Amino acid sequence: MTRTGIWIVGARGGVATTTVVGALAIARGLTSTTGCVSTLPAFSKLPLPAFDEFVFGGHDLDATTSFADDTLELARVGRFIDPQLIHALRADLDAYGSRIRRGITTNCGPAVTRQRAESAGESTIPLREQLAALENDLRSFRTEHALDEVVVVNLASTEPPLDADPAHASAQALDDAIQHDRTSLVRASSLYAIAALRTGCAFVNFTPSNAAMLRGIIELAEARGLPIAGSDGKTGETLVKAALAPMFAHRNLRVLSWQGYNMLGDRDGEVLADPEHRRSKVHSKDGVVSGILGYPVHTHVGIDFVPSLHDHKTAFDLVHFEGFLGHRMMLTFTWLGCDSILAAPLVLDLARFSVAALRRREPGIQKHLACFFKSPNGVTEHDFHKQFEALLEYAARAG
Amino acid sequence: MTRTGIWIVGARGGVATTTVVGALAIARGLTSTTGCVSTLPAFSKLPLPAFDEFVFGGHDLDATTSFADDTLELARVGRFIDPQLIHALRADLDAYGSRIRRGITTNCGPAVTRQRAESAGESTIPLREQLAALENDLRSFRTEHALDEVVVVNLASTEPPLDADPAHASAQALDDAIQHDRTSLVRASSLYAIAALRTGCAFVNFTPSNAAMLRGIIELAEARGLPIAGSDGKTGETLVKAALAPMFAHRNLRVLSWQGYNMLGDRDGEVLADPEHRRSKVHSKDGVVSGILGYPVHTHVGIDFVPSLHDHKTAFDLVHFEGFLGHRMMLTFTWLGCDSILAAPLVLDLARFSVAALRRREPGIQKHLACFFKSPNGVTEHDFHKQFEALLEYAARAG
Amino acid sequence: MTRTGIWIVGARGGVATTTVVGALAIARGLTSTTGCVSTLPAFSKLPLPAFDEFVFGGHDLDATTSFADDTLELARVGRFIDPQLIHALRADLDAYGSRIRRGITTNCGPAVTRQRAESAGESTIPLREQLAALENDLRSFRTEHALDEVVVVNLASTEPPLDADPAHASAQALDDAIQHDRTSLVRASSLYAIAALRTGCAFVNFTPSNAAMLRGIIELAEARGLPIAGSDGKTGETLVKAALAPMFAHRNLRVLSWQGYNMLGDRDGEVLADPEHRRSKVHSKDGVVSGILGYPVHTHVGIDFVPSLHDHKTAFDLVHFEGFLGHRMMLTFTWLGCDSILAAPLVLDLARFSVAALRRREPGIQKHLACFFKSPNGVTEHDFHKQFEALLEYAARAG
Amino acid sequence: MTRTGIWIVGARGGVATTTVVGALAIARGLTSTTGCVSTLPAFSKLPLPAFDEFVFGGHDLDATTSFADDTLELARVGRFIDPQLIHALRADLDAYGSRIRRGITTNCGPAVTRQRAESAGESTIPLREQLAALENDLRSFRTEHALDEVVVVNLASTEPPLDADPAHASAQALDDAIQHDRTSLVRASSLYAIAALRTGCAFVNFTPSNAAMLRGIIELAEARGLPIAGSDGKTGETLVKAALAPMFAHRNLRVLSWQGYNMLGDRDGEVLADPEHRRSKVHSKDGVVSGILGYPVHTHVGIDFVPSLHDHKTAFDLVHFEGFLGHRMMLTFTWLGCDSILAAPLVLDLARFSVAALRRREPGIQKHLACFFKSPNGVTEHDFHKQFEALLEYAARAG
Repeated sequence: MTRTGIWIVGARGGVATTTVVGALAIARGLTSTTGCVSTLPAFSKLPLPAFDEFVFGGHDLDATTSFADDTLELARVGRFIDPQLIHALRADLDAYGSRIRRGITTNCGPAVTRQRAESAGESTIPLREQLAALENDLRSFRTEHALDEVVVVNLASTEPPLDADPAHASAQALDDAIQHDRTSLVRASSLYAIAALRTGCAFVNFTPSNAAMLRGIIELAEARGLPIAGSDGKTGETLVKAALAPMFAHRNLRVLSWQGYNMLGDRDGEVLADPEHRRSKVHSKDGVVSGILGYPVHTHVGIDFVPSLHDHKTAFDLVHFEGFLGHRMMLTFTWLGCDSILAAPLVLDLARFSVAALRRREPGIQKHLACFFKSPNGVTEHDFHKQFEALLEYAARAG
Repeated sequence: MTRTGIWIVGARGGVATTTVVGALAIARGLTSTTGCVSTLPAFSKLPLPAFDEFVFGGHDLDATTSFADDTLELARVGRFIDPQLIHALRADLDAYGSRIRRGITTNCGPAVTRQRAESAGESTIPLREQLAALENDLRSFRTEHALDEVVVVNLASTEPPLDADPAHASAQALDDAIQHDRTSLVRASSLYAIAALRTGCAFVNFTPSNAAMLRGIIELAEARGLPIAGSDGKTGETLVKAALAPMFAHRNLRVLSWQGYNMLGDRDGEVLADPEHRRSKVHSKDGVVSGILGYPVHTHVGIDFVPSLHDHKTAFDLVHFEGFLGHRMMLTFTWLGCDSILAAPLVLDLARFSVAALRRREPGIQKHLACFFKSPNGVTEHDFHKQFEALLEYAARAG
Repeated sequence: MTRTGIWIVGARGGVATTTVVGALAIARGLTSTTGCVSTLPAFSKLPLPAFDEFVFGGHDLDATTSFADDTLELARVGRFIDPQLIHALRADLDAYGSRIRRGITTNCGPAVTRQRAESAGESTIPLREQLAALENDLRSFRTEHALDEVVVVNLASTEPPLDADPAHASAQALDDAIQHDRTSLVRASSLYAIAALRTGCAFVNFTPSNAAMLRGIIELAEARGLPIAGSDGKTGETLVKAALAPMFAHRNLRVLSWQGYNMLGDRDGEVLADPEHRRSKVHSKDGVVSGILGYPVHTHVGIDFVPSLHDHKTAFDLVHFEGFLGHRMMLTFTWLGCDSILAAPLVLDLARFSVAALRRREPGIQKHLACFFKSPNGVTEHDFHKQFEALLEYAARAG
Repeated sequence: MTRTGIWIVGARGGVATTTVVGALAIARGLTSTTGCVSTLPAFSKLPLPAFDEFVFGGHDLDATTSFADDTLELARVGRFIDPQLIHALRADLDAYGSRIRRGITTNCGPAVTRQRAESAGESTIPLREQLAALENDLRSFRTEHALDEVVVVNLASTEPPLDADPAHASAQALDDAIQHDRTSLVRASSLYAIAALRTGCAFVNFTPSNAAMLRGIIELAEARGLPIAGSDGKTGETLVKAALAPMFAHRNLRVLSWQGYNMLGDRDGEVLADPEHRRSKVHSKDGVVSGILGYPVHTHVGIDFVPSLHDHKTAFDLVHFEGFLGHRMMLTFTWLGCDSILAAPLVLDLARFSVAALRRREPGIQKHLACFFKSPNGVTEHDFHKQFEALLEYAARAG
């Protein structure tokens, strides 16, 4: 049997945990594939890996003595995973835990530094050594489990935006910066991406961290013939925006203001409570409406940390628009979604589509995966329906 | 200059009034075309009539001494038309009022009969004479104003559903029923549609009344080489449904329940407060979600008469859905739209597209207009985005 | 130690189950008293029973082999009780299950008859024998467990409203009706109430069923020196209404329309899907707004059965109101509450306050408990804040 | 006839304009008193001035050539005043306009300074001269119109919070600071308040600006035997909070988080878009929930400037709370209110109650008016219902 590795950066977070639990449960027939896009009939002709082919591993900052126990604790607090399921998967979950390696936080931003004061040891290690260690972890993972393909998915905490620099412009310039240990020019996510590509893995950036998708990194993917896709999984409020905004355009209704308020309480929310980190997310979420409508709209994206909500993200959006005879009207929506539950199947989808691209030798940016991302690299289309049409067309061409 | 007639059945209602005010105001440069689909750049190659070509007339049950004064009263109560605009258009509005002819209520249902007890005189007039009178009105309209084309748009109160009957199956069978005065087999809307087609007009059914779109009527349109389109303008809550439901399908999220509550207070709401009439509307609104998702969903469509809201329709929808690992989540939306303001520009769009079809000699059901209707005749696709794509493709082919 | 009996009619329903689980858990220190009114400091001087004094029993239609297993199933489906808690309370829960006796469905309405076709055997048993059997169950409960006081709480499915009849006017007339087996003049809830009072128990009607609170029943309570209270626990949407409506009155804002839509999916919702049964609930919920505002308001109370929601009731209310200069404005609210979780602590509160009344020898209608009910018997005040003030004043007088 | 002066600081703002239009319209019988609290029957025994006794004047920064024309423009843009009404009141409105005097912006904060760069001339004028000029305006107003009583109401833009200083502690210390021209210790609102009290007027602070309610100012009111009341009119979202929060307390439901998002687009919103000014408002709005519940709650008060909404404030609140068995539930509400329409009648109420206090010689802080304010000076009770009870009790005592 083919064996496919999925390596998760941020291996112990809520999304990662839900991804692994879900994939294991599907493989065992304990849950359905509801929420997975790649299992829709339209994609049945693609060489997608089966769920029971997957082997999971990853990087994280915390060690774990029992990943199954950690997951039970998440189930208790978050109330979105059935404890029975965890009991049934206990051995596999602990095996996953044993495959988690110590990651890095290089230049990850103040919120991570605050949370991880103790673990900032790597800041004194040269970048090239950090990179070598990450590569080593990935090579070992591939070898030990005899993996045919490996996809690395970045699910780490959102980093602050990285300012543009000439050192990002090519794979060579980027490598020079690393060799000269110019720490301020990269972030941890850059090193994870480079390590993935240098060890022959596909790479998916599920976060808004732009440091993972520098021009030089994309060039590296192209040069190595590897697929790469990002950025920022489109799971909830932005998904609704991207589905609704075209309606206003198609009806020639003029959107005057689109206010979006996001409330969430998990670790993601805690990191995003820091204005530096939040900038990445707001920027990613905020381009969608004007991008679809084609004219500047008064928009606002609020992200507030509300601990009691835990992972049960609640978003409220107000759309104020003008119709015939200048009359003003309103649409509001409230989204009550669980972030991990929404994100996890998309992580599996992106991993599966990436493996298909590896198998079909389709290197570089996977533009047909734009529908999965808030800020799809290499794609300017934000209309969710057109993005999904593009995915269907890809599947039809490939079939 | 070309002159184009738009003949409105229900000529004094809120939608009709807003349509006429808006068209006149656009022609004079007093308002923008916001809310009109047909003015989008994508349709610029079609032979659409200009707004200043339009001459409006119509049928209604009430006489008017001054349509401009009636409109001022609507503006006062409904607060969605600027009184200044009415003053500027006073002469043209009164001219429109003078072109309104007395209509019919044959078999229109209990709510209309109750409102119009005094006007039920026509029930003793044979159907063929009623039809002849309608035809005569339309011919006079065309001749008096030297109109190149005429479109008849049905904006009358929603009738109860008409049960299927073999007499509906062909133009001939339908004509026989009329000649034999079988009143129970047709409704007023049937006679309006037939009169339109027999006098060379295009016909648009903006209401859910199925009696206007019987198989025999569509056959008549085909035989006469005339365009016909319906049914039930998709203006508000159902539009949002049709834009949002595909999102759940594309994400493989399983919709468990979709509850929709509509509150409105205008005459439309009053008629729909009658369960017989409401059946037509609920049926029309209710097919969309399951139609898009492809599986049976627990749905509910409520329509409640709330007089204080007048034309400011408020709808609340709850979507309960299941995602990964069987977890249940929720989306709610509240739509605060003004029905007349939303409907009027679509009436103008449908008239303009119908005129283009007359000019391009495209008879029969105008399937590319499905995006305008809740229950598009001849089309099973309910995904709003795909419907709009179909309209774009039509325009591209035609250009 | 004093021992206090709580006898629940509808002993296996969601509210009953949650009540018993909660009381046992509080007694064991496994959960807090959040949601219980009677534990607020203001009531500390009242002779309220402690939670560990309680012994639970009840009537139901279904037998159970293991109440703990039933509760686990409820926890699995409803997701509002922690399975861990059930495991910790297993023995006590099963003991409660063993104290459940077979109840009656006499004249309970079509929805119950449909659900319980098989159990309709009692319809052939004379009313006086049914009553005697119920009394016997209550006497045994008291004796076997050496109970100092017993409170009977009606949590059975809502019955249709019972039309007024002279036979309801006094305890004597009511007894005559029972002796003469005039089944159409009473319902099961009447017999439960009478049995309770005839065996010296306090009685609480937590349902809207008016048959449980006939004038003759209240007279019986007064004659026996027993407390009685009802009707229809005010748990969610109506609570919010009763808290908000006074605001409009105090600000002299004129409420034009108050629309309320309730969606729920448990057995309660299923019974209320029947229009006969729903009438009781709608009547109970609908009096609040006009009762508080003091003028007739256009109101609507919708109750829809949405199975996927299970016990997670969702309500949407729209308040349309007029302010200064005739300007119209709107308030909407969405209530996402779990019915059993909200009701259970109030059941315990009512039982505790009833026991205090037994101990303090305060017979008849407990008017100070109005804040717990949608339709407080004997009280016309619907302003929740004034109702709560009345409870505080009672406690202050009693202290 | 008695003549009563109402002098408005911020005389040309939306609230002031609506107040004057409304009072004139009521006096002429052109509109009802809906929205006015003081006209409720409970207050009929108080010596309140009639609406036709009022003479309006005020301070503002902008001159006006025709206040009636300005009001028509407000009606056109804001759509909450009927233009017909303005036509009917044209002469009186222009007369009001002619009574508006040039005000001051001393130390009013960056947002006002930005808007009023040109008008900052007074910054070079000594405080005591500024004060003398304001007093002179008020004395002239009283004399010219032979006014029996005058109330000054502060409706100016919200100033940033003024830090505590010993100079605020007494009327004497405050006067010293003014005499020594210590500009940083006071703001414009302080001077307005002092001028009002030194010329024998009652003073009402309808804004959150704390500089208007310094201890020394309150002492001055007491010394002069004049009523004073504030701060920050409770018109919309906070009113709902204050009405709803007690419900959670009375049901022992633990509020975990209360998030409130306010969107508005008028000049008030523009000023509050500045973080310095917003601090005053947020502080005022944010104390209510924890104040009522008696324990610290995770709260958030957002205020965002959304120009398209103009005066039609939209607020969204989410209340996350815990009930029995630790289960978490949610209430959300959306408030669609027009700020000026809600505030104007309360301004009239406060003026009327202040005049009654003048007539009844009740100097100092008017604690019974707490229900009108978000941050009632001298009162810690935030429960709206208890605040209203206090007002009723005052009226009962006074009657």
